[in-house]
Amino acid sequence: MHTQRWKITLEYDGAPFVGWQRQRGDAPSVQGAVEAALYAFCQQHITVHGAGRTDAGVHAAGQVAHFDLAYGQRPLEAAILMKALNALVRPLPIAVLDAQCVPPDFHARFGAREKLYRYRIVNRKAPPALVAGHVWHIHSPLHVEAMQGAAKYLTGHHDFTSFRDSHCQAKSPMRTLDALDIECQGQEIIVWARARSFLHHQVRIIVGTLVKVGQEHWIPEDVKRALEACNRCAAGPTAPAQGLTLINVQYKGSWG
Amino acid sequence: MHTQRWKITLEYDGAPFVGWQRQRGDAPSVQGAVEAALYAFCQQHITVHGAGRTDAGVHAAGQVAHFDLAYGQRPLEAAILMKALNALVRPLPIAVLDAQCVPPDFHARFGAREKLYRYRIVNRKAPPALVAGHVWHIHSPLHVEAMQGAAKYLTGHHDFTSFRDSHCQAKSPMRTLDALDIECQGQEIIVWARARSFLHHQVRIIVGTLVKVGQEHWIPEDVKRALEACNRCAAGPTAPAQGLTLINVQYKGSWG
Repeated sequence: MHTQRWKITLEYDGAPFVGWQRQRGDAPSVQGAVEAALYAFCQQHITVHGAGRTDAGVHAAGQVAHFDLAYGQRPLEAAILMKALNALVRPLPIAVLDAQCVPPDFHARFGAREKLYRYRIVNRKAPPALVAGHVWHIHSPLHVEAMQGAAKYLTGHHDFTSFRDSHCQAKSPMRTLDALDIECQGQEIIVWARARSFLHHQVRIIVGTLVKVGQEHWIPEDVKRALEACNRCAAGPTAPAQGLTLINVQYKGSWG
Repeated sequence: MHTQRWKITLEYDGAPFVGWQRQRGDAPSVQGAVEAALYAFCQQHITVHGAGRTDAGVHAAGQVAHFDLAYGQRPLEAAILMKALNALVRPLPIAVLDAQCVPPDFHARFGAREKLYRYRIVNRKAPPALVAGHVWHIHSPLHVEAMQGAAKYLTGHHDFTSFRDSHCQAKSPMRTLDALDIECQGQEIIVWARARSFLHHQVRIIVGTLVKVGQEHWIPEDVKRALEACNRCAAGPTAPAQGLTLINVQYKGSWG
C-alpha cells in the first residue's frame, strides 16, 4: 500500500453546519461530511485537515483541506476523486472545486501563507430576499467613508486582544492584518480582510466594530482606542456569522 | 373614501412560487402573497398588477407592480406601506424595495418601456454550493466567444416564433431585442437581455440556444438559421428557470 496526500479546495454554504470542525455526536460539520464522503468512496477512516475552522453559519468559496489516502496498485486520479466526492456529499451544500496530489509535507493549516475573508452587509430598509442567509441586513444608512477611515487603524501588526473571542485559544493575540478594505456595490457594503492568520471571531468583531462607526455611534478614532484597550469589552459586537465567507487560502510555491 | 395608486418594486426568490401570477387553489404565487399581505394590512381585496409574469422558479431583483388602495381621512405614507408589507409577507422570500404614490394612469405592465433580465450560468465541473438555485450548472466548458458571435444574430427587430413557448399567448411574435450581452465573471457566464417586452420563455430559449453554440454542437450561424425558421423546434431547449432573474423595469418620465 502507498499513500497520496491530497489538497482539496471546497465551497460550502455554512447554514446547515455547526462549522468546519467535527464535533461529538451527530452535529453536522463540514469536516465530518467530507470525511463521510471519503469513507463512502474508499472505506478508509480518513482525517481531513482544514486550513481554518470556519464557525457555524460561516460560508466558504475556497476553503482548503488536506488528507492522506492509501491506494493499492494504481495512484488515484484527481478528476475521479473530485467527481466521486461531489456525488457523495450530496445533497449537502458542499462542492469540491479542485483536488491536487501534493507532496507529503504540504499542510493545509500550517502551510497557509494568507487567507482572504469577505463580509457582506446589505444596507437598505427592505430585508434581503435573494441573498438571505449570505448577508447581514442593516436597516439604517451606514457612513462608509467613516468606516474606511476607522479601518486604517486596524491594518498592520497589532495586539488584537480586543478583537478576539473570549474563548480564542491562540497563544498570542498578535496578528498582522495585511488589508482591510471596504467597498460599496449598490446597496451592499463589502468588507475584505486579508492576513496570514486570524484570531477566533476576529473578522466578525472587526465588522461589528466598523458598523458602530458606520452608524455614527463611534468616531473612527474610537476604533484606535478600542484596539489599544486590549480588552474584548472595548470593541464592538460580533457581527452575525451568515455574512462571512472564507474566499481563499494561499500557499507557498505552486500550491497557491 | 379616496384612492391612491401605488407603484411597488419587488425582490423575490422564485424557488417556492408557482410564478408571479395567482392561480386557482392554494398554489403559492408572488402576486397572491403580496395581495394577502395587503389584505392583512388594510382588509381590502386588492388586485396587484405586475409588469411581467415571471415563471415558476424565476427570481426578481426589481419586479414592478401597481395597485389601488382606498384610504379614509389621511393619505398613506410610502414608508409605512413598505414597512408593513415587508413585515406581513414574511417568512416568504419577498422584499418590497420601494413604494411610490403614482398618478392614476400609471400601469406597471402597459407603461413598461424596457425590461432587463439576467441569466447566470456556472460553468465548471463542481456543482454550485453557494449559489445553488440561482444558476444553471453546466459541467462542460462553454466557448463564450462563439456564444457572443451567435448573440449578434438575435439583437434587433425579428420574428421570434422560434424563441417562444408553444403556449405563448402574445398576438405577435415580433419583438425588438435591444441588447443581448454575454460576459464572463470568473466561473460564471452571465447573459443580459434587454427589450421593451419579451415573449413567453424567450430569454430562456435564447440561453438554451446560445449554450448549444457554447458547447460547439452548433456554429453561430445555426442561430441565424433557427431564427429564420420561425418554428420553435428549430431553436435550442428552454434553459432552467432558476438561472433567470428579472433585474428591473423602466418607465417613462420620473417613474423609471
